[in-house]
Amino acid sequence: VGAMGSIITRLLVEKGATVVGAVGRSPSKVGRDLGEVAGLGYDLGITVDEDPDAVMSRAAADVAVVAVSSYLETMFDHFRTCIEHGANVVTIEEESFFPWSTAPALAQRLDRLAKRHEVTIMGSGAQDLYWMTLPCALMGAAHRVDSVHGRTTWNVDDYGPEVANHVQAGSTLDEFDSHVAREGWPSFVVRNTVDALVADAGLTAAQVQTSVQPVLASSETPSRSLGREIAPGSLLGVTDTATITTHEGPSFTFEQTGCVYRPGQTDMNEWVVRGEPAELKLRNDNVPTRVATCTQVVNRIPD
Amino acid sequence: VGAMGSIITRLLVEKGATVVGAVGRSPSKVGRDLGEVAGLGYDLGITVDEDPDAVMSRAAADVAVVAVSSYLETMFDHFRTCIEHGANVVTIEEESFFPWSTAPALAQRLDRLAKRHEVTIMGSGAQDLYWMTLPCALMGAAHRVDSVHGRTTWNVDDYGPEVANHVQAGSTLDEFDSHVAREGWPSFVVRNTVDALVADAGLTAAQVQTSVQPVLASSETPSRSLGREIAPGSLLGVTDTATITTHEGPSFTFEQTGCVYRPGQTDMNEWVVRGEPAELKLRNDNVPTRVATCTQVVNRIPD
Repeated sequence: VGAMGSIITRLLVEKGATVVGAVGRSPSKVGRDLGEVAGLGYDLGITVDEDPDAVMSRAAADVAVVAVSSYLETMFDHFRTCIEHGANVVTIEEESFFPWSTAPALAQRLDRLAKRHEVTIMGSGAQDLYWMTLPCALMGAAHRVDSVHGRTTWNVDDYGPEVANHVQAGSTLDEFDSHVAREGWPSFVVRNTVDALVADAGLTAAQVQTSVQPVLASSETPSRSLGREIAPGSLLGVTDTATITTHEGPSFTFEQTGCVYRPGQTDMNEWVVRGEPAELKLRNDNVPTRVATCTQVVNRIPD
Repeated sequence: VGAMGSIITRLLVEKGATVVGAVGRSPSKVGRDLGEVAGLGYDLGITVDEDPDAVMSRAAADVAVVAVSSYLETMFDHFRTCIEHGANVVTIEEESFFPWSTAPALAQRLDRLAKRHEVTIMGSGAQDLYWMTLPCALMGAAHRVDSVHGRTTWNVDDYGPEVANHVQAGSTLDEFDSHVAREGWPSFVVRNTVDALVADAGLTAAQVQTSVQPVLASSETPSRSLGREIAPGSLLGVTDTATITTHEGPSFTFEQTGCVYRPGQTDMNEWVVRGEPAELKLRNDNVPTRVATCTQVVNRIPD
């Protein structure tokens, strides 16, 4: 029951799901009623517990909605607990959307475990519609696909200081370059997205290229999550890009910009499929990324 | 083998389909090789024949791709001929996309006939992606849908003088009003689209409203298909609108503007789903409507 789990709780209740348990980590939440923690304004008769195994043992849940962290490595034990208690997993954990290339060993272990327990694991979230269903639907109107190119943006200031630091917001260009030289840079979500698109199109990857580019402030820009101004020339955030060329011909590129927004800027998502017809274009403006992440994981439960 | 059938022929051949027959009406096409008629630059060894029954009897086709006219009433005999010869039908005929409300008796007769012959009838075309798959995918990201609103435009000058006259392009406002008073106005494609959306969402129509509004020239506008200028204040075309309110709550509106374009204007498609999240938006610019109609009917064949 973090920030996303609280929104998800309300959506579940409004959709008529019977909530049978809740797991939280924060001492400020553990021991309190889920309805209160999720800000529903009424109690649900479910106490937030810090022990996933205890909750799953008591709950006999059909489905576990899991929102904890972003990498399969840190999620493996959480998913295993759910699966071993016979619960299907739906999750917003990004790598689970398509983990077969970036975490193949863990994905295969979870796949075997889920099959043995006759349950499923489903990765969903904003990427489900915006980075997968929409470009795939667009490809369906093409006679020939030469390339698929996506661009998306998200506001670092929507996710607090930890995320802002993660994308190096506020760093100078020198600090950013040193950081990347020292620690490397995970290709992460953009890579999983192009992997998923290539797999959905029934193609096979020949070459994978990933890169990160700093997004620089052109004028003094206030950051809500950092609580200070970012100086001109310093980083608002980064653009991650992954490109896969396939043995069959078509190439797939996805660019994701996560940065502190200028006033009035909103989340945007855009795809162009080139081939015949020359261009098939699609654009989403003013994307409510955070809420759409929660709505989609809940809407996927029947699947 | 009209204008669309010629494009479709090339797409089929390039996709590796074996073309086993061709039906044409124009004396300039009948008796000539299909490859020549379709402008492929080489012969296909298939002679265009004017008798559908004779072609279907010889061809033993698995699939008939049918592009003749826009209403189920005028298409019924064509579809029946295909079905009775055991061919599955894919068609760009607009009413077939969802004929259950506007032509229920004919739709039911065809449905029974197709089931008896164990074949299918599939209506596709530009509406398949742009007016159906995309808004339905967008709804899939909503927690609650209050309304769905679509807008689309197409260029009357892309379809010749018959279509231009059909939408009253070049008429004065008085002429248009008299025409509508005298002959009424078919709600047609916008109605079929909202019918299909309501059905796909599993809802039931409470009230259906349709309307037509003239689109007037603000300055002298050249029309390629009319071969003359349209005077300021006269009609460039029309906007057809259909709205369905449902017993369950959500309402569905679709506006289609067919008019002579101003220089630089291109086909556009736009959907907004309102509810929670407040707005989910999607826009396609520079839509290649004609070609995307042909690509989609061909891509639907495996289905």
